[in-house]
Amino acid sequence: MGRIRRRRAEWGSWEDVVPRAYASGAERHTLVGPEDGAAQVELRYFRIPVGGASALERHPHEHAIMVVHGEAEVRIGDETHPVGVGDAVFIASDELHELRQVGDEPLGFICTAPADRARPERPTG
Amino acid sequence: MGRIRRRRAEWGSWEDVVPRAYASGAERHTLVGPEDGAAQVELRYFRIPVGGASALERHPHEHAIMVVHGEAEVRIGDETHPVGVGDAVFIASDELHELRQVGDEPLGFICTAPADRARPERPTG
Repeated sequence: MGRIRRRRAEWGSWEDVVPRAYASGAERHTLVGPEDGAAQVELRYFRIPVGGASALERHPHEHAIMVVHGEAEVRIGDETHPVGVGDAVFIASDELHELRQVGDEPLGFICTAPADRARPERPTG
Repeated sequence: MGRIRRRRAEWGSWEDVVPRAYASGAERHTLVGPEDGAAQVELRYFRIPVGGASALERHPHEHAIMVVHGEAEVRIGDETHPVGVGDAVFIASDELHELRQVGDEPLGFICTAPADRARPERPTG
């Protein structure tokens, strides 16, 4: 059965969605996922505080990403690119990637993942 | 290889993305797709003019949707729900669905699809 996840007044909070908080201060909000019965696709919102970044990782699954507030530098392999609201990013299979917040306000982006994916490998250092 | 698709100043136009225009006045902009080398996931932006709607359809693949501007009534099966900016919608496999623009401004939403999907069935009437 389909489902609506309503955003509260501002970016960063949805009805009936409990975010997962990371030690870095980042948050992941699963807006579409297994709890909804999704077997193919997940849609997650990530909130990255000022000075923070997503995990640097690579994995076989692709991502489609869109920035919804704030600004970022996205690392894809050995390159970094500035991105802002409405910019879309494709991360190919097994590409190393990271989104780093820049500027004065928290970064928010949405990011797809396959519902049946393997867990990511996170290189250290 | 990963890729950035930069939005122009406002919602509705991205660098190097040629929209597909439908007879209804709606537009589809593929922001992540096979042209980028995406084999698993597509991310599309749909722009629906005042008074318009997306195609009423059902198909085996799921959708994850987020409204990025304007307001809509989303039909899921026999029910309709009002949605606005930041609201996420999950469409399950084989659920009949449609997004209808409401209010004074065009509707914009992003919508995932599997890159290897079968083409949708579109009921008439």
